[in-house]
Amino acid sequence: LIGGQWREANATGAFHAENPKTGEALPGEYPISDWSDVDAALDAAQRAYAELRSKSGSDIAAFLERFAERIEARSEELCALASLETALPVEPRLASGELPRTTGQLRQAAKAARTESWRMPVIDTSNNIRSYYASIGPVAVFGPNNFPFAFGSISGGDFAAAIAAGNPVIGKAHPLHPGATRVLAEEAQAAASETGMPAGTVQLLYNMSYEDGDRMAADPRLAAIAFTGSRRGGLRLKQAADAAGKPAYLEMSSVNPVVVLPGALRERADEIAGELTASCLMGTGQFCTNPGLIIVQQSDHTAEFVDAVSRKFEEAPNGVLLSRGGLEGLSAAVTSLTSAGAERLAGAEPSADPGYSYANTVLKVSGDRFLSDAEALQAEAFGNETLLVIADSQDQMQDIIRHLEGNLTGCIYSASDGSDDDAYRAVEPALRQRVGRLLNDKMPTGVAVSPAMQHGGPYPSTGHAGFTSVGIPASMLRFAMLQCYDNVRPHRLPAVLKDDNAAGAWRCVDGNWTTSDIGAAV
Amino acid sequence: LIGGQWREANATGAFHAENPKTGEALPGEYPISDWSDVDAALDAAQRAYAELRSKSGSDIAAFLERFAERIEARSEELCALASLETALPVEPRLASGELPRTTGQLRQAAKAARTESWRMPVIDTSNNIRSYYASIGPVAVFGPNNFPFAFGSISGGDFAAAIAAGNPVIGKAHPLHPGATRVLAEEAQAAASETGMPAGTVQLLYNMSYEDGDRMAADPRLAAIAFTGSRRGGLRLKQAADAAGKPAYLEMSSVNPVVVLPGALRERADEIAGELTASCLMGTGQFCTNPGLIIVQQSDHTAEFVDAVSRKFEEAPNGVLLSRGGLEGLSAAVTSLTSAGAERLAGAEPSADPGYSYANTVLKVSGDRFLSDAEALQAEAFGNETLLVIADSQDQMQDIIRHLEGNLTGCIYSASDGSDDDAYRAVEPALRQRVGRLLNDKMPTGVAVSPAMQHGGPYPSTGHAGFTSVGIPASMLRFAMLQCYDNVRPHRLPAVLKDDNAAGAWRCVDGNWTTSDIGAAV
Repeated sequence: LIGGQWREANATGAFHAENPKTGEALPGEYPISDWSDVDAALDAAQRAYAELRSKSGSDIAAFLERFAERIEARSEELCALASLETALPVEPRLASGELPRTTGQLRQAAKAARTESWRMPVIDTSNNIRSYYASIGPVAVFGPNNFPFAFGSISGGDFAAAIAAGNPVIGKAHPLHPGATRVLAEEAQAAASETGMPAGTVQLLYNMSYEDGDRMAADPRLAAIAFTGSRRGGLRLKQAADAAGKPAYLEMSSVNPVVVLPGALRERADEIAGELTASCLMGTGQFCTNPGLIIVQQSDHTAEFVDAVSRKFEEAPNGVLLSRGGLEGLSAAVTSLTSAGAERLAGAEPSADPGYSYANTVLKVSGDRFLSDAEALQAEAFGNETLLVIADSQDQMQDIIRHLEGNLTGCIYSASDGSDDDAYRAVEPALRQRVGRLLNDKMPTGVAVSPAMQHGGPYPSTGHAGFTSVGIPASMLRFAMLQCYDNVRPHRLPAVLKDDNAAGAWRCVDGNWTTSDIGAAV
Repeated sequence: LIGGQWREANATGAFHAENPKTGEALPGEYPISDWSDVDAALDAAQRAYAELRSKSGSDIAAFLERFAERIEARSEELCALASLETALPVEPRLASGELPRTTGQLRQAAKAARTESWRMPVIDTSNNIRSYYASIGPVAVFGPNNFPFAFGSISGGDFAAAIAAGNPVIGKAHPLHPGATRVLAEEAQAAASETGMPAGTVQLLYNMSYEDGDRMAADPRLAAIAFTGSRRGGLRLKQAADAAGKPAYLEMSSVNPVVVLPGALRERADEIAGELTASCLMGTGQFCTNPGLIIVQQSDHTAEFVDAVSRKFEEAPNGVLLSRGGLEGLSAAVTSLTSAGAERLAGAEPSADPGYSYANTVLKVSGDRFLSDAEALQAEAFGNETLLVIADSQDQMQDIIRHLEGNLTGCIYSASDGSDDDAYRAVEPALRQRVGRLLNDKMPTGVAVSPAMQHGGPYPSTGHAGFTSVGIPASMLRFAMLQCYDNVRPHRLPAVLKDDNAAGAWRCVDGNWTTSDIGAAV
């Protein structure tokens, strides 16, 4: 889909999706575009951007809302196709979870575009200086394998945020679910036409070579990149974008440490083991917020907890992974962890179940051992696996946390009677600095689409700890630049910076946030 | 100044400042630190950071305010010393301009730290998710040559923003004014001691090798970098920081295009020529917002304007540049512009005046010629020089703008009777996307310390168009990470995220900005 037209790709090759439950190829062949396709998409995006800048927030909102409606109208087909391509169950995951989340995000983004509060207008009346966040230009969205809708290149949170901020999107489909992505792009394009968006507002390329990806990232016609996926892929794009001085927002990897304090173990070891199991095996563990590293302190209740986790992992059914590559990757990661000294408690081998399936896996390592090779032992194993780290003291627990890389989330479970509060105060500061989202008594896998969400974190979990990829309007700021108007004549100001606040946006006027007009009686 | 102590450096060499008016060495020898000094400073900064995190915004504010008072108490000595080292005049520049600006910035930053509104708390009560911007960790500030106080590594806007956001600062002095920087660091350290800041909150290194600069940029103990200076130096640091996944905020270069539309020329060519001359020669042109590229369209009044600019530049006294290096750089840049086809109208040679002085320089080039080598012809010549580009049509004017790199500012002068409004609409969109701050009928050299300021812009004028280095509180967000609290128990929340809003900070609660407590009657 280039420049508003579905057309034959200039392909250097082709691929097809697979059914992960059977390993069989699915019908439908999809092209790997060559540079001429990417080049054409970049040109069309530039043209679309010039037109888009004259569209109002309401125009863009109408497009996003129409797109959400059109997704809903084809929801059954979409869920069936995505389930076939990913082995994610239609119910509850796709139909009741991910699809409504996706349309909900699009509608939240539409609302943000309409009210314009996301632009954070700041007005200094005494100096007559006014600033706000404005669209940045064409954005390339590289979607991940694990959320065909909600993080999809042509439908997900990055897409919604980039469009709502006024930017055209070039979506690069994830090759594991080209069929579902195609249907989404059909609906996006139809909605764009219906609502008068310029051709090239939404474009889709199914696949391209790494080299062309790098070249696109560095191309001056592209303004920014959003990527969700592996660390290797993210760092590669980052390098290309950095060299060109371009922002790349990358969500790359995270083991999401969970610290369970002694009082919590004493109080509810079995309950926490249950929560951990549910969180870790949800979606066969293929979540960016999957709890992959559990830190507990040796105590009278530690063995009980470890046993409970192992038993629950073994009792739970083994899910199907997204792909052969996912199975191979998980297998290799578990081998690497055991080579570094982790001990097998459950699983740690492919399962006998049909399809790409790996046995639910629990590994264990002592605090001493962890500290002796912290880098290897905190590598992400993407899938239904977790590693328990048993510290011999509270000091060692702190030390382990200090050896962690940046992560998206960190959780602390503590006793409800306050008996862990000293321990909490001891471990919290180190964990707080290493994670974007800190949780209490709750597993990290639910990522609410909340304006207060931080789905991001210190490097290398993402490329910049100041931004979030989930949560509207904050996620839109990634695809914006700060533009200032100094002494610009009133009739030339963007609507949201004029004295009259017609849209009723929240604006910070002379230090106070208000939705009033300037000069209006308070 | 390392870890709160003035101590002998482990030096690999030494340097001294020069009087740019005479070329003579000034008394006082300053060390070039080796890696062991940088290493010690990083360690001390880490320790200071751990302590700083328990300080309140009011504690930090007290330090910044005390520092401002102490600067004022030594203002005479500071201005005299800085003037000797930079040739910038004590009056009006240093004593009435830059020094009050500097103390004003420190006090604004103190106020921001105290109220905590800069943290942009966002609270979602239904999900019990709360987020805000929190300190990021030790920040290295590389100050520029041209503002010994207001952008100084140990006193300027970056310093104030980093400290107010709760981060220790390692200042790297600019080697042209080590004496003034030393006095500022003495006062900063004294103020820090008096107000109970941890040792290592403020540290100073006079100089280090490029290699050690790179190594510091990549060191995991450092959280972020602020740099103001040359493009070459900035890109070097950026490369080191990028590879380590670390934010580097760089203000590098800008020619600050000024577009004068035909009606404005007809109406007030001489007046605009006067404004341009004053703006361009202020501080001997050594401002990051110096108007270095003036775009006009051939018309009946163009020759009058060009002549007026040339005459005014010739009539104005030639200032003294900051250093021998500055003179050599300006000379080389002018040669490079003339080699690329620019024609000399005034100056373009060292002046016969004493000291490091270059004749006020006006160059001219046709639009055709500019477009034939736009890269070379928009290179920054740092100093008292400007280049007039004469477009043959409005279309060519637009084309010229489309060939511009990212800049800090862009100005459009237009007729007061509205006769240029069509032309404005034609040229504004392209200029708007290429600059951080757009001005009307005003030269760009005044950078107000306003919350609505954007002193930043698209690459390569800075490293990220979403951030500003001037304007409080916005500039503080560079030195912060977005931290989220999900289901965290109330007594463990940071004060500004609790239900009670004791500091009276502006917070966005369920989509509405308010200073009220949560649960309070509206």
